[in-house]
Amino acid sequence: MKILKLGIGFLTAATLLASCGGSGNKNGTDGALNKNNAEKVYVAPGEHDEYYAFISGGYSGNLLVYGLPSGRMFKEIPVFSQFPTNGYGYSEETTPMLNTSYGFIPWGDSHHPDISQTEGVLDGRWVFINENNTPRIARIDLETFETVEIIEVPNSAGNHSSSFVTENTEYVVAGTRFSVPVPQRDMSIKDYKGEFKGALSFIGVDKETGSMEIDFQLLMPGFNYDLSHPGRGKSHGWFFFTTYNTEEANSLLEVNASQNDKDFIAAVNWKVIEEYVKNGGGTMMPAEYAHNVYDHHTHSATSTMKKEVRVVNPSEVPGAVYFLPTPKSPHGCDVSPDGEYIVGNGKLSTDLTVHSFTKMIDAIENKKFDGEAYGIPILNFDDIHAGSVEKAGLGPLHTEFDDKGNAYTTFFISSEVVKWKLGTWEVIDRKPTYYSVGHLTIPGGNSREPTGKYMFAMNKITKDRYLPVGPELEHSAQLYDISGEKMELILDFPTHGEPHYAAAIKADVIKGNAKQIYELDENKHNHAVKSEKDTRVERKGNEVHIYMSTIRSHFSPDNIEGIKVGDKVFFHVTNLEQDFDVPHGFAMIGQNSAELLIMPGQTRTSIWYPKKVGVWPFYCTDFCSALHQEMQGYIRVSPTDSDIELSWSLGDD
Amino acid sequence: MKILKLGIGFLTAATLLASCGGSGNKNGTDGALNKNNAEKVYVAPGEHDEYYAFISGGYSGNLLVYGLPSGRMFKEIPVFSQFPTNGYGYSEETTPMLNTSYGFIPWGDSHHPDISQTEGVLDGRWVFINENNTPRIARIDLETFETVEIIEVPNSAGNHSSSFVTENTEYVVAGTRFSVPVPQRDMSIKDYKGEFKGALSFIGVDKETGSMEIDFQLLMPGFNYDLSHPGRGKSHGWFFFTTYNTEEANSLLEVNASQNDKDFIAAVNWKVIEEYVKNGGGTMMPAEYAHNVYDHHTHSATSTMKKEVRVVNPSEVPGAVYFLPTPKSPHGCDVSPDGEYIVGNGKLSTDLTVHSFTKMIDAIENKKFDGEAYGIPILNFDDIHAGSVEKAGLGPLHTEFDDKGNAYTTFFISSEVVKWKLGTWEVIDRKPTYYSVGHLTIPGGNSREPTGKYMFAMNKITKDRYLPVGPELEHSAQLYDISGEKMELILDFPTHGEPHYAAAIKADVIKGNAKQIYELDENKHNHAVKSEKDTRVERKGNEVHIYMSTIRSHFSPDNIEGIKVGDKVFFHVTNLEQDFDVPHGFAMIGQNSAELLIMPGQTRTSIWYPKKVGVWPFYCTDFCSALHQEMQGYIRVSPTDSDIELSWSLGDD
Repeated sequence: MKILKLGIGFLTAATLLASCGGSGNKNGTDGALNKNNAEKVYVAPGEHDEYYAFISGGYSGNLLVYGLPSGRMFKEIPVFSQFPTNGYGYSEETTPMLNTSYGFIPWGDSHHPDISQTEGVLDGRWVFINENNTPRIARIDLETFETVEIIEVPNSAGNHSSSFVTENTEYVVAGTRFSVPVPQRDMSIKDYKGEFKGALSFIGVDKETGSMEIDFQLLMPGFNYDLSHPGRGKSHGWFFFTTYNTEEANSLLEVNASQNDKDFIAAVNWKVIEEYVKNGGGTMMPAEYAHNVYDHHTHSATSTMKKEVRVVNPSEVPGAVYFLPTPKSPHGCDVSPDGEYIVGNGKLSTDLTVHSFTKMIDAIENKKFDGEAYGIPILNFDDIHAGSVEKAGLGPLHTEFDDKGNAYTTFFISSEVVKWKLGTWEVIDRKPTYYSVGHLTIPGGNSREPTGKYMFAMNKITKDRYLPVGPELEHSAQLYDISGEKMELILDFPTHGEPHYAAAIKADVIKGNAKQIYELDENKHNHAVKSEKDTRVERKGNEVHIYMSTIRSHFSPDNIEGIKVGDKVFFHVTNLEQDFDVPHGFAMIGQNSAELLIMPGQTRTSIWYPKKVGVWPFYCTDFCSALHQEMQGYIRVSPTDSDIELSWSLGDD
Repeated sequence: MKILKLGIGFLTAATLLASCGGSGNKNGTDGALNKNNAEKVYVAPGEHDEYYAFISGGYSGNLLVYGLPSGRMFKEIPVFSQFPTNGYGYSEETTPMLNTSYGFIPWGDSHHPDISQTEGVLDGRWVFINENNTPRIARIDLETFETVEIIEVPNSAGNHSSSFVTENTEYVVAGTRFSVPVPQRDMSIKDYKGEFKGALSFIGVDKETGSMEIDFQLLMPGFNYDLSHPGRGKSHGWFFFTTYNTEEANSLLEVNASQNDKDFIAAVNWKVIEEYVKNGGGTMMPAEYAHNVYDHHTHSATSTMKKEVRVVNPSEVPGAVYFLPTPKSPHGCDVSPDGEYIVGNGKLSTDLTVHSFTKMIDAIENKKFDGEAYGIPILNFDDIHAGSVEKAGLGPLHTEFDDKGNAYTTFFISSEVVKWKLGTWEVIDRKPTYYSVGHLTIPGGNSREPTGKYMFAMNKITKDRYLPVGPELEHSAQLYDISGEKMELILDFPTHGEPHYAAAIKADVIKGNAKQIYELDENKHNHAVKSEKDTRVERKGNEVHIYMSTIRSHFSPDNIEGIKVGDKVFFHVTNLEQDFDVPHGFAMIGQNSAELLIMPGQTRTSIWYPKKVGVWPFYCTDFCSALHQEMQGYIRVSPTDSDIELSWSLGDD
């Protein structure tokens, strides 16, 4: 029954594995410059960083907020994973956020954050981030820095070429990395070729509220869709996706998906499809997917299961999609600030390949096609090729741009960042990274207005960069000063989780909008209390609802009797505080859930199933005042058949 | 039924709440010194920090590893909480670590890390840390930086005065913060006084293996036991615990536990009790508690439920316990490096109170008692008082020591650290903190040999210290250079979770011991594979076991058919890599669990319940090589009644 064809050693493995060399000295920094560099990254106590960096948590499922140039982490925002720290994914209000068509999923693999844009410039209203494993896209609100929406992407698998936004945040896209049967059905994996499909989803974003809705899915050939970026300026209206595995192999892809000399970048004219759909084009197809929305007034999430999605066959929409031949298995897909250049490099290559948008349009208008794939026209490489940067390094992955017409490309295998000139294709500088760099970020990246002061590289291998901490390590990032002709490595900083990509923005754009508290007056939670006099305990059969408040430094009620083994006890806890940075926490001994961490003005609910007879304490988990240690209470749990009546109190007798 | 006695406004609340002032300038730093400070905290790329700091994650339930002086976070070690990032608390191997007598608990509230000692000096073998909510103590191995043992503490509630160790790590202690009925029983909360007990647990630590066992529990009067520290040098053999709520109030403690002018420090002579127990003293009492152990060779945890514990009534052991009167509601309980001074301050006071061990012994020998409480002798304050630091600040909490005879005390209400001289009690310096400082740490603290270069303050309030990130914030810490006469604030750095306390140590003591990989040869996991040829799929009824391997850059097997809806599928995944920092991850679309992040040489298991017919992908979640994106596979799920036979393959056909 076992079919085993070993392909190990088929490539000179050593050159493909992570390299730990790089071209610099041991440290990648010049000792004489250290003093100067120290000052460059130092943010003195009481001062603020210049930039926010929203760094993906990767397989943590979360999004991290850092400051630049200090490299300090200011927040971990739970997105796709349970977060015991504040009860996200455990409390009644937040568990609906992790609902999917597969049921509740406690974990996700977040990848590529992107900040909302207006007219091609980052507007700092929301961050979008994709989940790769069980395809989803989340929206994080940059007033509260909380996840406010998650939409599942049906017909997709490995939602990797996502979640980049168009110039006016018309769409956030989600391209499948793995092709699958669409619709899903019981078929042999061996019949993949020609049968599996790759869905590219265009998710509309409401201009005012940010609310997401899947407008259409392009059902593309069964390739792997790796990364993507929108056109801008002259190329606004287009979206570009790298593909690999155009071989449509289903096993041992490290060999079988590395056969074709060239794969494609798919250029998608979404304006054409938008028009097509507006005129009734496409088909509504049954598809189950969750749409989860969190409301800051009810402080609660709701999950709705959607039942269908509009799919579009690209071969039926003339002018919608073209394939740009691109060297073997390209990974990154990056568009220059002016929208003219599309960079997509063979990921095992030494060269960088750049396509020209102008030449592409010209070739399309002149119908200079070199055949088609599944009905999609293929352009000639030479007709669209803007230029190449030759022998630039080994294993080019991702490219970002500065404000001076330069591009910066990471090389995974040779562990370096190479700076080169758009248009002349000359290499200007190269600096080692430590080690095996994946993405890089320049604040303002993926917009018309990148900045020119800092660039940071996010590495896949850490090894000896920090004090050793056993086999499992944080990833390492390197911050470079790019204000001069040559890049200067100025800081090593660890990142939390796996930093796939980051979006960064000038702090001034958003810092003034951040909320400090939730207004108690505006709390519309079903089980909120607005003052201590409303606190109470109610029994409905074996359900007991405790309407509790917190304020420095006591709970009300703080003594409760009449609870019985077998009850289902709801703690609805409202934090009555209205001062900035005065959360209270709630935890109950032996509670089979996480704590509740409750922000000022917020209500949170936890369920407790008392199992043992006795008198059990609860307390505030957040050191809230000089008398925090006194902020505690007791609940008496009596046997199931006890006739102890429900009672509660604040104050002793 | 509702008994409400509001006590709000009973104190001039403003003075008790967090103060955001402090005595310094806005930033707490002198602009002219910034350059110099930048260099002091800068660890250039490629260089290493001088100290490890193990900072409690507080309500994250975890332990964080930082470097000093850079303030960079190198690792989050999951301890008491589920950790979606690497599957801790989700994978079959690790879920037993979170088992308790209440069942599986996904969250904990970690508090006070302490490093193991030999002859009063930190030996860097293990870190112990307590869980406050459902009382437990964990041991983290400093070769692997993983949690290897968790023991539950029965008869305890709010395990706060923990987990400090004695001079030779003879014991790690766990003192209850909340007193409860012992044994637990159905009684009225109002009958607390005189009926509830406070258990102080002494947990023996095996000299060689570190393995923990509860040797005895002292059943103390029903006070709140807040913090503790061991004697050392001359006071070795003693342990000191602060108490509050000697009023034995059960409600609104912010008022009712602040009545007595003095509470106590309990001085426990554990050598006397050890002798008593050795001679058969104490009583074995039925008590259910979990003891969870993780083995690095089987890569698996096992949970055992213990059935009884030895309890000791202190009033029956002459010479075992004495009460030292200490100003109202003391919080911290700190012992000087020479073991002579015990610092325990009234936490709303302006003064610091220091007891003398020598005077205490003298008073005991001369039987100078001032009555007793529940059979425990009370000493006279004046007989044991070494000295006071008067009008030092407002709200003193914790004290640490340097190598020059100085002490450093945090003041929560006045938001500052005050440096003072042991013996002369004079104030040498004061510096503001931002804001409302709780604990502070000097590397080498809680040992005979504290260091004298750095001190850091861990604050409870952050507010404006960093770029704003909405209502929920990381906590702020401040690093001070204490090498001179005056302290200098040199760095603000955020901490992850809630930093209750930290243990810090010179990097040289442990950095050489850190493991880089797990040896595949030594992998004794029941379901490990040692090479690709052992990979296979086995069906046992509706259970399917997939024995899978990972190596750059493929899974074996990577195509699996014959799985059916309704099956219970076990993925047993072994990472065959033997290179440092080459983990692989495993995730399956729609999997109702977290990913597996598998270190080189390690095996991890995840269970999947396929619910939908179709062909579903899995992939490696950790960017492992230049062909990482090719590391994927498919599983075909057929209907329950399908007759598709089990098959699997590596390599296509």
